Amino acid sequence: MSHIAFIGIGNMGAPMARNLLKAGHTLAIHDRDVAAAARLAGVNVRVAEGIADAVAGADAVITMLPAGAQVEDAYLGGGGVIGAAAAGTLLVDCSTIDVATARRVAGLATARGLAMLDAPVSGGVAGAEAATLTFMVGGEADAFERGKPILAAMGKAVVHAGGSGNGQAAKICNNLVLGISMIGVCEAFVLAEQLGLEAEKLFEISSKSSGQCWALTSYCPVPGPVPTSPANRDYKPGFTAAMMLKDLRLAGEAAAQARSSSPLGAQAAQVYQLMENAGLGGMDFSGVIKLLRKGE
Amino acid sequence: MSHIAFIGIGNMGAPMARNLLKAGHTLAIHDRDVAAAARLAGVNVRVAEGIADAVAGADAVITMLPAGAQVEDAYLGGGGVIGAAAAGTLLVDCSTIDVATARRVAGLATARGLAMLDAPVSGGVAGAEAATLTFMVGGEADAFERGKPILAAMGKAVVHAGGSGNGQAAKICNNLVLGISMIGVCEAFVLAEQLGLEAEKLFEISSKSSGQCWALTSYCPVPGPVPTSPANRDYKPGFTAAMMLKDLRLAGEAAAQARSSSPLGAQAAQVYQLMENAGLGGMDFSGVIKLLRKGE
Amino acid sequence: MSHIAFIGIGNMGAPMARNLLKAGHTLAIHDRDVAAAARLAGVNVRVAEGIADAVAGADAVITMLPAGAQVEDAYLGGGGVIGAAAAGTLLVDCSTIDVATARRVAGLATARGLAMLDAPVSGGVAGAEAATLTFMVGGEADAFERGKPILAAMGKAVVHAGGSGNGQAAKICNNLVLGISMIGVCEAFVLAEQLGLEAEKLFEISSKSSGQCWALTSYCPVPGPVPTSPANRDYKPGFTAAMMLKDLRLAGEAAAQARSSSPLGAQAAQVYQLMENAGLGGMDFSGVIKLLRKGE
Amino acid sequence: MSHIAFIGIGNMGAPMARNLLKAGHTLAIHDRDVAAAARLAGVNVRVAEGIADAVAGADAVITMLPAGAQVEDAYLGGGGVIGAAAAGTLLVDCSTIDVATARRVAGLATARGLAMLDAPVSGGVAGAEAATLTFMVGGEADAFERGKPILAAMGKAVVHAGGSGNGQAAKICNNLVLGISMIGVCEAFVLAEQLGLEAEKLFEISSKSSGQCWALTSYCPVPGPVPTSPANRDYKPGFTAAMMLKDLRLAGEAAAQARSSSPLGAQAAQVYQLMENAGLGGMDFSGVIKLLRKGE
Repeated sequence: MSHIAFIGIGNMGAPMARNLLKAGHTLAIHDRDVAAAARLAGVNVRVAEGIADAVAGADAVITMLPAGAQVEDAYLGGGGVIGAAAAGTLLVDCSTIDVATARRVAGLATARGLAMLDAPVSGGVAGAEAATLTFMVGGEADAFERGKPILAAMGKAVVHAGGSGNGQAAKICNNLVLGISMIGVCEAFVLAEQLGLEAEKLFEISSKSSGQCWALTSYCPVPGPVPTSPANRDYKPGFTAAMMLKDLRLAGEAAAQARSSSPLGAQAAQVYQLMENAGLGGMDFSGVIKLLRKGE
Repeated sequence: MSHIAFIGIGNMGAPMARNLLKAGHTLAIHDRDVAAAARLAGVNVRVAEGIADAVAGADAVITMLPAGAQVEDAYLGGGGVIGAAAAGTLLVDCSTIDVATARRVAGLATARGLAMLDAPVSGGVAGAEAATLTFMVGGEADAFERGKPILAAMGKAVVHAGGSGNGQAAKICNNLVLGISMIGVCEAFVLAEQLGLEAEKLFEISSKSSGQCWALTSYCPVPGPVPTSPANRDYKPGFTAAMMLKDLRLAGEAAAQARSSSPLGAQAAQVYQLMENAGLGGMDFSGVIKLLRKGE
Repeated sequence: MSHIAFIGIGNMGAPMARNLLKAGHTLAIHDRDVAAAARLAGVNVRVAEGIADAVAGADAVITMLPAGAQVEDAYLGGGGVIGAAAAGTLLVDCSTIDVATARRVAGLATARGLAMLDAPVSGGVAGAEAATLTFMVGGEADAFERGKPILAAMGKAVVHAGGSGNGQAAKICNNLVLGISMIGVCEAFVLAEQLGLEAEKLFEISSKSSGQCWALTSYCPVPGPVPTSPANRDYKPGFTAAMMLKDLRLAGEAAAQARSSSPLGAQAAQVYQLMENAGLGGMDFSGVIKLLRKGE
Repeated sequence: MSHIAFIGIGNMGAPMARNLLKAGHTLAIHDRDVAAAARLAGVNVRVAEGIADAVAGADAVITMLPAGAQVEDAYLGGGGVIGAAAAGTLLVDCSTIDVATARRVAGLATARGLAMLDAPVSGGVAGAEAATLTFMVGGEADAFERGKPILAAMGKAVVHAGGSGNGQAAKICNNLVLGISMIGVCEAFVLAEQLGLEAEKLFEISSKSSGQCWALTSYCPVPGPVPTSPANRDYKPGFTAAMMLKDLRLAGEAAAQARSSSPLGAQAAQVYQLMENAGLGGMDFSGVIKLLRKGE
């Protein structure tokens, strides 16, 4: 078992850290929100006085932070991870951030003799609690092999997507398809309603046909066909529209920098932005059907 | 076995008619292109002198025509199906046309005591030849029961989508999702390329994750992951971009009349239109990746 | 002065007919809404018993109807204009309808020896009342010369746009630019607000620069810079979002039939559709800024 | 007259510096491309050994650089402007960069007692040579008053857009409208062509009507109506599609950070990206009509 520094004890980080404890690891934790860190204190968990203190003596460092700016601060700032970590420490950033920042930070870590992985997750708070997250991991193969058993304690799948930044790339590419196909499915259900074609009938046909997609068959945006989908609990998330918007914005930013075309991705981001403007950003992203439907 | 009038002996109609013959039906056929009809002449197939002649004495009439205007002509014109058919004849239009025209023609047929089904297909010429088409059928339940065994001779699935026009509605709703999700998948592969994430890796991750969709896992737009997909034969169709554009235009027209929102569907139609403008309309619709990619 | 049959005495038709009376013409009028026609009865105005009765003895026929279907009915139906009009009568359709229907009806009129113009207007109810409409006219040059003085009694500009259907074409092409540029202007004002750039300042800069457009300088979507714009009266129309949506739908339909690319036009229609879905269809189209702005 | 440090002697910077010389200022210049700086050497122009050397003793510093990253380097890097400039020096960045970076750099300058303006230009290389640029300027009023006479030597208009970053904000908001309205105008001309409405006729009508915009009446994307527009010289720029794409990407980035809706701006960026992908990025942005037109 390892001694792990865990930075970022929020809605995602706290249950992930708990699963590491269950697996027998010891932790030194830190969060800007002192109370959040304190709530996790206990046997095998030491609340550190700051990042440098947490990192001291750790075999591995895991970070789970809101965005690229916080990751830069935590790794590159004064008293940050890269300055404080001993040579040979494994660094794993589980935050969802932009590819460019992920690669820049990893490059600086490597230059200091530290191995670093980007390992964003899918599965949300529920997956974090149940240890059923999927980790999409970018970095060198040997670093991946070192990180895999640690990540496996927090998830059901740990996939190596290639070199540095490719974990982030895989996540935004996957969510680009998801964010687009969900709106496509919603448009089809709204049109079907207007044309007098029952939702159950459209589901029955498309789920076995070329319109089949995860957004339809696992996360159906109308109540009924898939009993576990958020539509059955008035679009309580699940995965919020605001989170999907964040991922599509990251995809759009990456596409812009790479001079890549993404006409539907760009438009999908705008649709979720309109949903957020309408005050629905905290709703599950499948609730975008409410924006599209007449009179709601 | 029945005696069937078959109107429209084109790329789709000819193999469909042959499968009816194999099943033991007798046919009276008609096509404006006299040579096309003549090629099918033979045992149990009589080339009629026109629509009225074909329809005379038929138990059922099947039409397979390019668009709504031809269907209106064939059914409502002088010497057309509705005027010529004996009471009790079953009318089945297998063309893909707009919902409004389908319902209007069926309404006029019903008013004259004729049962009518709209039964557009998916599966293309290959499906027509192999008798593996899927029929999405709109119309009364008893008419559906009468038509089902006839259609079953030409396909592997015959689905009842509800009342008149709902076959057409189901087809455009399904293809709306398909046309959108294919572009989404292509955008993701193009972005992955630009970011240095291998196509095989993205496929491996998304095919088991929330980005999974038929466009990805059955019709993958990059060569390799799905050996049977058109990408492996330089986007030889399959289902052409021009056909997808036609279906998305029908969906857009239906959405406009129903005052239904379809932001991604509208944009997807424009993307396939740009593909057609670039001279790529005859390519498989998954070839839209060539439009999105830099320098092709 | 002429004797004119005027069909369609609605919000637009009634004030237009009044301006013809002021100019000294005599009228025979008809509307499906008998009360609407009755309200205009008086000296030099006879309420006819139907279209054929109105048309009898008229030098010219003017129609002002909601959409293509009503125009087809009025001209081509039993007792319709084309059947009833005497050879040599000038037919002028002022409705805004699709180009294809306009050309088809005009073709049938010509085949019966009747000259026909399509002459849609811009300027709205206010322009109809003040006789300041602009007429965009399609048809033969000699028919245009005959119609011009009659139309001039109802408007300030009568422009010949070319052959049959070109009046409709000119209107939808113009409104395509207008509907798009208005959303562009609104996006710029919303972004400026978010960035802390004052609306007055953006107006001052762009009105003299490459962002100048009629939507900005004559119909500014924020209150202040253009005192007469609907933004200063809480977006009371003016020209409703529903009307703009109708015109963009016509443009989209024409583009689809002509296989013409219109990516921003298609998206603009969707934005106004979302505005209508949100219950704002009766507001001036410049009110689309409320849809785009956060928290409204 | 002042002694001015001018950093960035490229296609824009070189003619701008020449106009400062004509106005009687003396210059110390620097460019990473040593040859580019050397070409401008001469009476009243000293080629400095680096940024710090150029800045030493200057009354004002002007920078004209490609993007935000270079501006950050030049101002904040070791030996950069902010470290090297004497208290009281006026700093003016004429580059077009993102609002956030502009504000961040200006904030750091202010903290060191230096006044800073962001002053991006419109008018292109031709405007830089003819001293007819428009400067959109953000910063404190007294700094603006100090900078105005210097900028006036290089342009015909110097507009104060408000506080720090507002010059950049004004430029992207203006170009957001321009980039959108140009595509709208092109869509209208393409549709008109397809419908048989002559370009000259559409120009005549819309230039006096609600479709009027700078993109139509000053920069008409079809040859003929506006003899000076790039369409008359096969779309030789002018203002390249790649430059418009850059500005729309900046607008999109600012909108994303501000959580502002910009559905047509997002789509317009994608259309110019497709144009660049098709190898047309070096063409004038009005050449986007070639992308939209069939068979080109």
